[in-house]
Amino acid sequence: MTTLVEEKVAQSIGILNEKEIDLWLTFVRETAAVGDPVLPLIYGDAGLTWQSALMISRDGRRVAIVGRLEEEAARRTDAYTEIISYDESIHSCLVSTLEWFNPKKIAINTSKNDVLADGLSHGMYEILISYLEGTPYGERLVSAEGVMSALRGRKTPAEVELIRSAVDETLDIYRHTFENIHPGMSEIEVSQLMHEQVKERGLGHAWAPSGCPAVNTGPDSPVGHGAPTELKIEPGHILHLDFGVRKDGYCADIQRVVYFLAQDETKAPDNVQRGFDTVVEAIQQAAAALRPGVSGKEVDDATRSVVTGAGYPEYKYGTGHQLGRLAHDGGGMLGPAWERYGDTPFWQVEAGQVYTIEPGLMVPGYGYIGIEENVLVTKTGVEFLGKPQTELILHL
Amino acid sequence: MTTLVEEKVAQSIGILNEKEIDLWLTFVRETAAVGDPVLPLIYGDAGLTWQSALMISRDGRRVAIVGRLEEEAARRTDAYTEIISYDESIHSCLVSTLEWFNPKKIAINTSKNDVLADGLSHGMYEILISYLEGTPYGERLVSAEGVMSALRGRKTPAEVELIRSAVDETLDIYRHTFENIHPGMSEIEVSQLMHEQVKERGLGHAWAPSGCPAVNTGPDSPVGHGAPTELKIEPGHILHLDFGVRKDGYCADIQRVVYFLAQDETKAPDNVQRGFDTVVEAIQQAAAALRPGVSGKEVDDATRSVVTGAGYPEYKYGTGHQLGRLAHDGGGMLGPAWERYGDTPFWQVEAGQVYTIEPGLMVPGYGYIGIEENVLVTKTGVEFLGKPQTELILHL
Repeated sequence: MTTLVEEKVAQSIGILNEKEIDLWLTFVRETAAVGDPVLPLIYGDAGLTWQSALMISRDGRRVAIVGRLEEEAARRTDAYTEIISYDESIHSCLVSTLEWFNPKKIAINTSKNDVLADGLSHGMYEILISYLEGTPYGERLVSAEGVMSALRGRKTPAEVELIRSAVDETLDIYRHTFENIHPGMSEIEVSQLMHEQVKERGLGHAWAPSGCPAVNTGPDSPVGHGAPTELKIEPGHILHLDFGVRKDGYCADIQRVVYFLAQDETKAPDNVQRGFDTVVEAIQQAAAALRPGVSGKEVDDATRSVVTGAGYPEYKYGTGHQLGRLAHDGGGMLGPAWERYGDTPFWQVEAGQVYTIEPGLMVPGYGYIGIEENVLVTKTGVEFLGKPQTELILHL
Repeated sequence: MTTLVEEKVAQSIGILNEKEIDLWLTFVRETAAVGDPVLPLIYGDAGLTWQSALMISRDGRRVAIVGRLEEEAARRTDAYTEIISYDESIHSCLVSTLEWFNPKKIAINTSKNDVLADGLSHGMYEILISYLEGTPYGERLVSAEGVMSALRGRKTPAEVELIRSAVDETLDIYRHTFENIHPGMSEIEVSQLMHEQVKERGLGHAWAPSGCPAVNTGPDSPVGHGAPTELKIEPGHILHLDFGVRKDGYCADIQRVVYFLAQDETKAPDNVQRGFDTVVEAIQQAAAALRPGVSGKEVDDATRSVVTGAGYPEYKYGTGHQLGRLAHDGGGMLGPAWERYGDTPFWQVEAGQVYTIEPGLMVPGYGYIGIEENVLVTKTGVEFLGKPQTELILHL
């Protein structure tokens, strides 16, 4: 059976040819302490301790240079055509292997824009440069961000099914939660209920469990990445949840909202319903705009303008990010041209990518409305993974 | 109650004064994907998503600049005197906060030598330099490796007790294992037995579970960081194990050896016993040499020379590393002057550090003998954590 690592390494060779990169060099050490997020895709979970170099060439040659003690583990990945091991220093075999490849353009694991392509530490960069002194290769280095974002972003059919399965579990835990919550429960108690479900089902959390789920009830709860509080659900509250599971190494990331009816109410107040409808419409506009070839910024504009056009303040974060092995899976994003996003809002959307769409707004006096859906980019548009929330859930 | 983070941040202010560093700046982003190993010590496990700066000054001021959504989580660390949050870019508030501190020497989270002080990615380094253009601060940057290795290395009494507890659990799992193994079991079965014990006790593994324990039976097993194999224990085999648990966030890392008596044997063959005695003697020499003020290289020399002096080939790794939150806890090491170790073998040993001592040698025809002990450096020498192995365990 072909493993995910073999599948992704094979995929990377096609991407190197497409991007006209001769050699892709991933340089790491002590990955148990400072990991490179590309390793699960091109090496697996074994870990690399001493300075190690994974080299994939556009002609299909693949060399792993690792410490002596990890020669056997490297061999077992079945992803490299040659394993070289060393004892005292990687310096000479790194240089001689580069001479053997003699690449004109070498892409390395560093990026200002894409954190998931930025696994090379600055200390390791300085070491690499010192090893390459006196060779022509130091001047041939470029960022591998294009290779990595394509490799990570273009999900294989097997990867899409894994994400779909994580989405299904996440929605099923939401269903169970909505059946078991009631006014008087604290945000912490809602979180505990969902944590128990994650544990019972043998799943993981898509991000740090202390903030997964995020739970916000009513107008006074601090929205963000903080942990749930002692605030209690009351009639007349919007309850907002942000949650996702990790299953078999892949993540979901979904937000849902519930309205708790106040006494004598049979439906949500008009301004709550209007806020909800605005967010749903914004998501529809995002889905309509999202297809191969557009930039993330265009999709962000189309979504954000629905919220601001309805008179709400703009949300102070990007409309969506990619999703995969990590909840924030790097690469291009559906975002505005803000400095902290670097170039990533200008990258092109490609078929096979999976994005979140997550506009939000505050309804004063009631709480925060944020809905987040997960979508797969197809050749012509998008497919929602799991049933999107289009009706406000009303709870007694 | 003072938390570990508050305790370590307070400790860091003393270290900044000792090292004459005005400001310690830790610059990170998306730590769920690319973490900085210093964060558990100075921030906790909440994670930082947007570009964030943790700044600790030798005069005691401590500022965290974080994304808007993480303002509340940052406040809850109770470790920073001021929390600043931003929406679109950290650029201007980073620069204005530096102006407020106006430090002459700024230590940042990068190091060629110490991987655990090298959390700054090269992409983030380039971003930092671009933010500091036009200010005097770019030229005032130095590596924080001295600060970080002191902070991580000098264990507080509470930290030493946590490591001691991890050692005790590790030795107790060894005891249980030795009572339940027998010839005919495969390396994989021995590993499963130990994994079950880790799980039953609600503990974690000190490194990747696939290689924790490492299990080597007999002369043909590949020694190193690989996973256990289908090789079966036979009479006349040395069984070598390398294992440690993580408990309450702290690790142990211990190797043990067992000899399986062949038919009619009542003791180990002379060359097995001689190999064992050599390794035990090497550990005793390491313990005798290890005290505050010596370099790691001196200790490595004293240990290595026992093995080579007895006529065995030298082991191709360092004699020992520091131990703490991670099995390989960074900082100075007990190692030879090999290029891959950078400067770390020349750093001074300090009281409060915890080291492994782990010489090893191969006995042809029987297997690998490696013993690894964990020791605390005291003011005058060392204290063994847990009872060291000084007798060869004989098994029928």
